[in-house]
Amino acid sequence: MAETIKIGVVGYGNLGRGVVQSIRQNPDMELVAVFTRRDPAQMNGEAGIRFEHISAAEQYKGRIDVMIMCGGSATDLPEQTPAMAAMFNTVDSFDTHARIPEFYEAVDAAARKAGTVSVISTGWDPGLFSLNRLLAEAILPQGKEYTFWGKGVSQGHSDAIRRVPGVKAGVQYTIPSVEAIERIRSGETPDLSTREKHTRHCYVVAEEGADKAAIEKAIVTMPNYFADYDTTVTFITEEELRRDHAGMPHGGFVIRSGVTGEGTKQIIEFSLKLESNPEFTASVLVAYARAAIRLHREGQSGAKTVFDIPFGLLSPKSPEELRATLL
Amino acid sequence: MAETIKIGVVGYGNLGRGVVQSIRQNPDMELVAVFTRRDPAQMNGEAGIRFEHISAAEQYKGRIDVMIMCGGSATDLPEQTPAMAAMFNTVDSFDTHARIPEFYEAVDAAARKAGTVSVISTGWDPGLFSLNRLLAEAILPQGKEYTFWGKGVSQGHSDAIRRVPGVKAGVQYTIPSVEAIERIRSGETPDLSTREKHTRHCYVVAEEGADKAAIEKAIVTMPNYFADYDTTVTFITEEELRRDHAGMPHGGFVIRSGVTGEGTKQIIEFSLKLESNPEFTASVLVAYARAAIRLHREGQSGAKTVFDIPFGLLSPKSPEELRATLL
Repeated sequence: MAETIKIGVVGYGNLGRGVVQSIRQNPDMELVAVFTRRDPAQMNGEAGIRFEHISAAEQYKGRIDVMIMCGGSATDLPEQTPAMAAMFNTVDSFDTHARIPEFYEAVDAAARKAGTVSVISTGWDPGLFSLNRLLAEAILPQGKEYTFWGKGVSQGHSDAIRRVPGVKAGVQYTIPSVEAIERIRSGETPDLSTREKHTRHCYVVAEEGADKAAIEKAIVTMPNYFADYDTTVTFITEEELRRDHAGMPHGGFVIRSGVTGEGTKQIIEFSLKLESNPEFTASVLVAYARAAIRLHREGQSGAKTVFDIPFGLLSPKSPEELRATLL
Repeated sequence: MAETIKIGVVGYGNLGRGVVQSIRQNPDMELVAVFTRRDPAQMNGEAGIRFEHISAAEQYKGRIDVMIMCGGSATDLPEQTPAMAAMFNTVDSFDTHARIPEFYEAVDAAARKAGTVSVISTGWDPGLFSLNRLLAEAILPQGKEYTFWGKGVSQGHSDAIRRVPGVKAGVQYTIPSVEAIERIRSGETPDLSTREKHTRHCYVVAEEGADKAAIEKAIVTMPNYFADYDTTVTFITEEELRRDHAGMPHGGFVIRSGVTGEGTKQIIEFSLKLESNPEFTASVLVAYARAAIRLHREGQSGAKTVFDIPFGLLSPKSPEELRATLL
């Protein structure tokens, strides 16, 4: 490929920053501009990045091959992805599982009308984990599938802690049960309750004079978030929070334990151990941007998911090279 | 899908038997006939299976959607896959890595001419492991990849043992180094020698009066097969061989340890733990048979590898159902 793939990035939070870093690792790609709702004149600091107000995106039509959407799933992507799909190929990480069908329909309509390709809901869950759930189920139709998340920071649960009266700051780690995973790896197919699959550890900075016992009780009994889990609360200082809990690690396991023939046990496992959730998700988005422009060049249009995209399109290598070196 | 996918099986060794069993787990599939070089009249025993001589395959043109090729890679498949691809869609597990490019060319020519789809070199390595090597490299271009095999029986190494003078029977297990895997999982990216990645354990039945010390020395010093490994030899009785070593377990690990951003460590791991290598490989072939007929119905033709096939085509579920339930 002589010509580089020209990438635009919409949104410059942790995910957008990760995408910019990932593009630098891929010599066949080039960052054209980062689009933001903030004042681009204020976005100095990072050398070599062109910032534009999001309203200027239209001026880049024809100059950007793929827009990588780095906004949030709650309010940004449902609005931004269809709008950008009307002008550009896009890739996003829309991750509200229950709303994927309606999101797909909205993006598909916009992309078909514009003749663009929109890869939705990629990343690692949804994304790589979804791929492994599908693959393992297709190969082992008689079996049982388990997904474990962590060890990692859950943004939603960390936000929930911070809403508790008396809490100044806090972070929540989801911890998969090593014991449960080992049981499955050894061939058991237990029915596991929510409590048996994961535990939750909270590191909390209390406001001065706050009632720590009341905070702990409010957290561990909080419905939907913590009541169904074994939750521990550890009080720490602001300095400890900054020093020990600034990273965004995550990961998890997708395990299918199945049976072939006359009760022969077969186990398929996929796992991730990530020091940075947003940087990894960004790297997945960038690989799928390569697939998006290739599908577009093939004449395809509409919304696509990871289930529709052959892995060969993710690699900068040619099909011949892939067959000779990676098969 | 109202109509079932009609499957033919070519070859009835361990793999062919596994395919027949796997078809029974997939309600959207139907076994039409098993084709063999043996006398089909002698192939009684298994109720409900129609056996045919391989020369009768042509008579099934139009009545079989996909032929699943279950012969060996050394001499069967290079001849049989192109011949069958001239009449049917096919799926095979050709696994001589170095000869894949020439095999691809031969099958591709036959399949294009006939307007059929031939999925070559699927199974788990090549196959699922190849997919994971490609995926992990595309997402983490800065990184290092490790493949470990086992614990499992290596047919080639077992054959090598049996050629040693004085050996009556034997089986060889390839054992991955747990220590090496743990080092990689913990974030190290060591350069590992052959000896550090796997050990080999041989269970040998000696002929009466044979010189066991000479047998052991012949095995552990055998070039290409054992000399580069730490190999142990255990002498057992024929009864112990039958009782304890009749299974064909296998499996392995594909691990990529990569870096994003400013030195952030990210680890992707895929692993299999299989009680039966042929039954699992068979299940992969059957899932890819579903993809083969779908690609054919889309109007495609030619040789395909796992890199060319979206996972969605492997599942009996519709794209809508997959998006709603597995994404």
